[in-house]
Amino acid sequence: MVADPDYRAVAAAYRRIAPHVRRTPVFTSATLNDRVGVPVYFKCENLQRTGAFKMRGAINALLVREAEARTHGVMTHSSGNHGAALALAARLLGIDATVVMPADAPGVKQAAVRRYGARVVQCGPTLADRETALAEVGRASGALFIPPYDDPDVIAGQGTAALEFVHEIPALEQLWVPVGGGGLASGTVLVGAAHGVAIIGAEPALADDAYTSLSTGIRQGPLPPRTIADGLRGALGDHTFRMLRDYGLPIVRVSEAAIVDAQKLLWQVLKLVVEPSGAVPLAGLLMTPGQNQDVGRAVGIILSGGNTDFPGG
Amino acid sequence: MVADPDYRAVAAAYRRIAPHVRRTPVFTSATLNDRVGVPVYFKCENLQRTGAFKMRGAINALLVREAEARTHGVMTHSSGNHGAALALAARLLGIDATVVMPADAPGVKQAAVRRYGARVVQCGPTLADRETALAEVGRASGALFIPPYDDPDVIAGQGTAALEFVHEIPALEQLWVPVGGGGLASGTVLVGAAHGVAIIGAEPALADDAYTSLSTGIRQGPLPPRTIADGLRGALGDHTFRMLRDYGLPIVRVSEAAIVDAQKLLWQVLKLVVEPSGAVPLAGLLMTPGQNQDVGRAVGIILSGGNTDFPGG
Repeated sequence: MVADPDYRAVAAAYRRIAPHVRRTPVFTSATLNDRVGVPVYFKCENLQRTGAFKMRGAINALLVREAEARTHGVMTHSSGNHGAALALAARLLGIDATVVMPADAPGVKQAAVRRYGARVVQCGPTLADRETALAEVGRASGALFIPPYDDPDVIAGQGTAALEFVHEIPALEQLWVPVGGGGLASGTVLVGAAHGVAIIGAEPALADDAYTSLSTGIRQGPLPPRTIADGLRGALGDHTFRMLRDYGLPIVRVSEAAIVDAQKLLWQVLKLVVEPSGAVPLAGLLMTPGQNQDVGRAVGIILSGGNTDFPGG
Repeated sequence: MVADPDYRAVAAAYRRIAPHVRRTPVFTSATLNDRVGVPVYFKCENLQRTGAFKMRGAINALLVREAEARTHGVMTHSSGNHGAALALAARLLGIDATVVMPADAPGVKQAAVRRYGARVVQCGPTLADRETALAEVGRASGALFIPPYDDPDVIAGQGTAALEFVHEIPALEQLWVPVGGGGLASGTVLVGAAHGVAIIGAEPALADDAYTSLSTGIRQGPLPPRTIADGLRGALGDHTFRMLRDYGLPIVRVSEAAIVDAQKLLWQVLKLVVEPSGAVPLAGLLMTPGQNQDVGRAVGIILSGGNTDFPGG
């Protein structure tokens, strides 16, 4: 069994990937501060290269396994952001990449993967569809699989967003992240535990497999892909389930309407394009105060990505 | 006759308003750099307080005429951004404000004016409608009129966006601004002339009164309000016509489709919400290269504002 990553792996990833990723800005809004009652800081990973935090984990995994990756190239499956990230990371290092994507992934995400020079193989909407298509690519090419989230190097890379965030805003006492497959959340809890910041997960109610997994202690498979938060349709993996369970991550579930409202609010007050998955933590924070934990003196939110088709085409 | 402002007025405005405005960030995109062939810098006035550069001119005018403004409050007419800016500027200084707005102004802009504590008086869609309603407010209250653009203090304030921009990006050789009433453009040409940066205006073809005014030498009135660029429906005033004519501002006219395409592109590559008026300069820059002037080593664009209703409601 491959060991779960620890905080030192995040710190090592931070040094390793720094030349390849953007140190994303932190935004605030007086309107939102008033509404929440304490300062709210937004870590803008929608402004990361490829438009999502996924660049951090992908480039970290490639740098750690560079020699192996060069032999027959790399491959992955992705609803979009990890695929684009792996495509760009591979291009930066001069490595071939193949990305298996569901045919119903947002057009802007499929276009990005192609623009960064990776080969796209389309598949059906379920995780089983992805795995079948990926196995075929692997048999034909011998490519190295870089998983979208359930991988120690990927998790350590994703943790670097929180590491930058807590360094920039030392006042943070609570930090919200979206939970899909749990890669970002797992990297973030390592940072939260080391820096004394409470981590809260947020998940669409229509894809609340992580909530059920963590509250029952039994890891759940993915639910049918019904939520608009297309980046959060995956289920926890071996590493991420174990890490989030051991941390005891609380998870707030939000409605589809709350996700759209949060996305509109980010548009209106921060002037930022955030994809539905990225708006899920703000939706959780803005739920009736009685349902929230104490937010402390300052609360942070990781805006995980900004890759979404322009409304109305 | 009140004299036109000069470069020193912009420099004075910069010192005066600095405590009240945001020094907005400059964004870039590798995708757009590749497409244009030289580095393209975006000055993000959509991230300015109230979501538009208008905050600069409004607070400058209020600070210059503070004593007079305190007597009976201030008033203006505005399709939205100047109204919101004057409302917030007045609130910061503890002064009453009334804003005359066309009933068809974007809902998000009307809501902003109210949120900043100003009184909103609705009127019809034409400039004549606005002026009639404004005269009535003036008779009833004795409020001081702070014009949306044709005012030396307002123009000097708007020029501070370009002043920050050329200081931050000394390589700029060409700088694009949208042209409506010409307040931003007039402040910008003062900075361009002083710093050796060529200024280019961009205007919707459906509201090309400034283009016609400057190419014929005869100041035109406003055209019917048909363009989606709701902030650019006004016509040049006495000061702005004279200043832009004397500078010899070239103006590129763009189609409505090009405006929407530019807005989508900004959404997709910069992850920024920009209102249609703010996308007009990029639309101009991206027109077939033969129609553009030489862009020099680096080109700048002022993203003038980000106040637009969420597409699809």
